[in-house]
Amino acid sequence: MQWKQDIGAAETRIRQYVQRTPILDTIGFGLKQPIMLKLEHMQHTGSFKARGAFNTLLGGTVPDAGLVAASGGNHGAAVAYAAKQMGFRARVYVPEMAGQAKIALIRACGADLEVVPGAYANALEKAQSYEQQTGAMQVHAYDAPATVIGQGTCFVEWDSQGLEADTILIAVGGGGLIAGAMAWYGGSKKIVAVEPETCSALHSALEAGAPVDVEVSGVAANALGARRIGNICYELAQGHSDAVTPLTVSDAAITKAQKLLWRERRLLVEPAGATALAALTSGAYQPEAGERVAVLLCGGNGANDPLEALNDAA
Amino acid sequence: MQWKQDIGAAETRIRQYVQRTPILDTIGFGLKQPIMLKLEHMQHTGSFKARGAFNTLLGGTVPDAGLVAASGGNHGAAVAYAAKQMGFRARVYVPEMAGQAKIALIRACGADLEVVPGAYANALEKAQSYEQQTGAMQVHAYDAPATVIGQGTCFVEWDSQGLEADTILIAVGGGGLIAGAMAWYGGSKKIVAVEPETCSALHSALEAGAPVDVEVSGVAANALGARRIGNICYELAQGHSDAVTPLTVSDAAITKAQKLLWRERRLLVEPAGATALAALTSGAYQPEAGERVAVLLCGGNGANDPLEALNDAA
Repeated sequence: MQWKQDIGAAETRIRQYVQRTPILDTIGFGLKQPIMLKLEHMQHTGSFKARGAFNTLLGGTVPDAGLVAASGGNHGAAVAYAAKQMGFRARVYVPEMAGQAKIALIRACGADLEVVPGAYANALEKAQSYEQQTGAMQVHAYDAPATVIGQGTCFVEWDSQGLEADTILIAVGGGGLIAGAMAWYGGSKKIVAVEPETCSALHSALEAGAPVDVEVSGVAANALGARRIGNICYELAQGHSDAVTPLTVSDAAITKAQKLLWRERRLLVEPAGATALAALTSGAYQPEAGERVAVLLCGGNGANDPLEALNDAA
Repeated sequence: MQWKQDIGAAETRIRQYVQRTPILDTIGFGLKQPIMLKLEHMQHTGSFKARGAFNTLLGGTVPDAGLVAASGGNHGAAVAYAAKQMGFRARVYVPEMAGQAKIALIRACGADLEVVPGAYANALEKAQSYEQQTGAMQVHAYDAPATVIGQGTCFVEWDSQGLEADTILIAVGGGGLIAGAMAWYGGSKKIVAVEPETCSALHSALEAGAPVDVEVSGVAANALGARRIGNICYELAQGHSDAVTPLTVSDAAITKAQKLLWRERRLLVEPAGATALAALTSGAYQPEAGERVAVLLCGGNGANDPLEALNDAA
């Protein structure tokens, strides 16, 4: 119950620093029923991650060494952006799989960046070493209370925009965003946790009965490719198991949902941003008659800048 | 005064057929003050044009020959879409400059399409011939009351979403959308009419004292490249001259605004869709202190599908 208070307080704390993102109620994508979308990929730096970054930064005293973070890309950009807005230094470690566009985005946000061979977990080791050596404030991408509480503010905001849903579909990587949702709703809404088949840390943990290491790959790996689900997320999913439905979707289903979002609504999101919708459009999740369904679009940072392609004549 | 009643009635008539598009209040793009955006490029077929198409179609009896329209691209897609939804045939004429993506979009919407050499005006001649020969219902892209009234519903909707603005910036091609705004607001809000320097039919008409032919070219020509401003728009602009500020912006200002929309908010619009914002970001329009400014993003159909570029690794 403390979660709910903390998330409410965080929403007040970070409100002036984050973008209130639009909502869109629509019928389409080959679905029979209307769905409610939250366009959180329009958040600062293109994903919900700015919420956790600002909440962490504003919730403590930042040392002279500044902030440090490890990230598949989106979290690093958010930490760099939040640090710059508040006048702090940021050191960010990303794996090569982050891709050129996310790496360029983090640099553009003013961070001191190091690209690390391997996956997110390798970048995290580097960030933890840097924290120990310098005393910098670690902003964990998903498995710290301040991060989870910050991400939970997305749902406070959505509720304040009049969300009337029985069920919310959310993509899962390390589990920070969905942990925020589970913590805020506390079992009062059904949460569908959608993972790519190729990055299924939560699904694997729930099957194994504890967080376990998984291999990560596929189209959404640079956003959802956590090697192991966060403990906070795992515990909340266990605690609210009646209200949480874990599902996986194929890479093909994800890129199909991406296409539908662009072709029908001119919403251009990265694969992770289309993963939750993919559970509906692939039929992996089939709502009951009358079930009111909401889908969070969580990220918009693709591998490249699409603008030149849009404008160049074919 | 009849305009206002007609637009209100049209909004009720077409509501179930059009997308209620999101609003976004934001601070950014290098501007000092917050602005209110309406994301009308998320309308069916990617522009506001679906409003006028549905209003025309629903306001009369469609003959066996179906609908006919000439279009730079967006209007044709809207007419094709509206016709298909209601079970009618649609014949659409577009100039070559519409570009491959818009031509493919119109075909995908199910229209019988003919690509015409030259510019929009040449396509319009063809559409008028077809109307005379077949008795098809002409859906004019901008200079018919039913079209203007339909486009005006965008502002009824925006008002119902809580718009509190002193000034609205709107891009102008043939003037159907801005005519709808002038007709709905009737001088109660300031309307900034923004044209590309290379497609300035309204600006040229107001200077000449009557609609005159202009040359059209540049990045937004396939959406804003009307050879002559519509008479309805011209008369409304004359009638509300105290409340209407015409401005032009360069192609470079338009593509810069396009970049800002993508980089800061992950909004991907075509050049016409960024033209109104360009008046602010280029400094062509400088609001007074405290002036509450709104900007309509009117179209999202670029020259190509940007999705592959987004996903392919660099």
